[in-house]
Amino acid sequence: MGKGRLEAFSDGVIAIIITIMVLELKVPHESTPAALLPLLPVLLSYVLSFIYVGIYWNNHHHLLAASQRISGGALWANLHLLFWLSLFPFATAWMGENHFAAAPTAAYGVVLLMAAVAYWLLQRKLIGLEGSHSMLRRAIGSDWKGKLSPAIYALGIALTWQAAWIGQLLYAAVAVMWLIPDRRIEDAIAG
Amino acid sequence: MGKGRLEAFSDGVIAIIITIMVLELKVPHESTPAALLPLLPVLLSYVLSFIYVGIYWNNHHHLLAASQRISGGALWANLHLLFWLSLFPFATAWMGENHFAAAPTAAYGVVLLMAAVAYWLLQRKLIGLEGSHSMLRRAIGSDWKGKLSPAIYALGIALTWQAAWIGQLLYAAVAVMWLIPDRRIEDAIAG
Amino acid sequence: MGKGRLEAFSDGVIAIIITIMVLELKVPHESTPAALLPLLPVLLSYVLSFIYVGIYWNNHHHLLAASQRISGGALWANLHLLFWLSLFPFATAWMGENHFAAAPTAAYGVVLLMAAVAYWLLQRKLIGLEGSHSMLRRAIGSDWKGKLSPAIYALGIALTWQAAWIGQLLYAAVAVMWLIPDRRIEDAIAG
Amino acid sequence: MGKGRLEAFSDGVIAIIITIMVLELKVPHESTPAALLPLLPVLLSYVLSFIYVGIYWNNHHHLLAASQRISGGALWANLHLLFWLSLFPFATAWMGENHFAAAPTAAYGVVLLMAAVAYWLLQRKLIGLEGSHSMLRRAIGSDWKGKLSPAIYALGIALTWQAAWIGQLLYAAVAVMWLIPDRRIEDAIAG
Repeated sequence: MGKGRLEAFSDGVIAIIITIMVLELKVPHESTPAALLPLLPVLLSYVLSFIYVGIYWNNHHHLLAASQRISGGALWANLHLLFWLSLFPFATAWMGENHFAAAPTAAYGVVLLMAAVAYWLLQRKLIGLEGSHSMLRRAIGSDWKGKLSPAIYALGIALTWQAAWIGQLLYAAVAVMWLIPDRRIEDAIAG
Repeated sequence: MGKGRLEAFSDGVIAIIITIMVLELKVPHESTPAALLPLLPVLLSYVLSFIYVGIYWNNHHHLLAASQRISGGALWANLHLLFWLSLFPFATAWMGENHFAAAPTAAYGVVLLMAAVAYWLLQRKLIGLEGSHSMLRRAIGSDWKGKLSPAIYALGIALTWQAAWIGQLLYAAVAVMWLIPDRRIEDAIAG
Repeated sequence: MGKGRLEAFSDGVIAIIITIMVLELKVPHESTPAALLPLLPVLLSYVLSFIYVGIYWNNHHHLLAASQRISGGALWANLHLLFWLSLFPFATAWMGENHFAAAPTAAYGVVLLMAAVAYWLLQRKLIGLEGSHSMLRRAIGSDWKGKLSPAIYALGIALTWQAAWIGQLLYAAVAVMWLIPDRRIEDAIAG
Repeated sequence: MGKGRLEAFSDGVIAIIITIMVLELKVPHESTPAALLPLLPVLLSYVLSFIYVGIYWNNHHHLLAASQRISGGALWANLHLLFWLSLFPFATAWMGENHFAAAPTAAYGVVLLMAAVAYWLLQRKLIGLEGSHSMLRRAIGSDWKGKLSPAIYALGIALTWQAAWIGQLLYAAVAVMWLIPDRRIEDAIAG
């Protein structure tokens, strides 16, 4: 079974997710620069989510590039990941419109956590298809980022109830950690 | 005529359908966890529809993978299927916002039924192009799931007027039946 | 210059156009079957536009399948066509929400007319690139449908001011004319 | 690393951006021709943005067609460009709904400026991967359009505070400058 359509469909869904988030930037009725100020938290949460969805697209790109085989189960593991990613626009808007209050920040963390779990399940499924001596398995390596991220999300969700900014700081820190390009798979493919 | 663009266009339409359904999850104005509670029926109907659209994408993927020939008539049979799938966001939102009342549940069933009929027509069209000894024909086999589903949808629509939850239960049962991976076509291609 | 991305981008835009039109089917707040009745004109205009956009996608598919060369000018001729197609959701919604009144029906006809002109310009551009002895040129043939359609649209726009239903009838008649599969290009490619 | 998915994902995002802008053309409740008049500034800003997004898609198409190598950094440079393009619908709607007032016109210019900077960064990244003797490097040439445009945008933003129409005129002038097909890369690939 070819992976072409799986990639194309995922590209489509992720492209729509990353783009419809911007619809939450509601056009102000006034035409003064000051009218943009109340939009700042919405813009900030959009930027954070844009980066996160970008990270997922990049990692998905690398993951599939290193995979040869796809199965019916992998299609569903992929759809499961797309489901959690599809909740980003909702979680982003709720957090942005409520000026990063505690409950929306925690909900945002839950979406981050579940997407990370779904990604890990997809990765495990694909490694299972490729085998333990595959290029993909070597490329993933110890996957310390993939293991650390859910723990930090969980910590962030818990600490949100103390102070929401701690959760937000932790979410941003994980994003920065992933923004540093992941050369593992690129190197494994090239070498 | 190549099937590449038919697949790409269908991927695009299905990706948009599956993603815009999430826009019905209207962002609450309060920032308390309790504000999420009224969204629960909307979320539930979203999950059910996400799974159904995912099933259609998976089956469409397999169906086209096993097909070699496309005709002008097949393009229209495919557009006919996409038309009924495009009514999922409407039917999902109506059912979710009205807490699974009878009329919206019946309407949801009608969309399920018509999409199943449209899929069956597309499948018949493609089998007609491939021939009765084709890999596709063998892969489809007795197609008991494809024959049983419309009957259960029709039963669900009828029983909705007795109690809406019976219809919903039947729709969910069909989804579970399809979630079990369909190895027929995969096996036929591999073997 | 490859035509692959031109096709992929057009597929994406047309997929979005055909899908966002359904967002005009506003979910009713009541949960009775009667609540669907006021939606009937919106649904009817959606069906007509779905068929029209489907016709454009089919014809675009055939046109590009028979083309070998693309130029910068062809990219713009294609974007020009996509621009007019992008006005379908607006024209469809205006006509549907106003129960097929005269002015919206005329506006719908103008969008149909301009899309037909844009398609003709794209076709001419591509024939110019392929040459007058090309497969594409032979496949297009006399193009009586392409020449007749704009004339009927113009007639429909004019007669709308007498009675809107005449315009709508003419638009529907052109759609039916195109729905009959166009075997010209398919035959030219096959033979 | 293949560039296929980078192109497909960018096509998807740009297709959505160019299409959702039309949703700002809010359907009027009246059904008279006069009801379209207040939409004229919104339509005008839509046309300008459609052309700009079309220009970016065309240039992106050419840029990637002349590139052979992609890196993790190039994926992020591309996402950075898509981020600024994703703000077009917001900036377009704000400018159109406020009848081209000064602040929205300046904000529109800022989005134009940042998109131009992001495009330049992506181009530089890709040239860096291809090498200074590459086809891409020769195809880009002196890139006077790419260097002149940001300067004119900056001038437009500054002069907007004198009179908004000067900024709009300058933005339109840059669009016209780019509409003249850029044969550099086409020629370099062909020759």
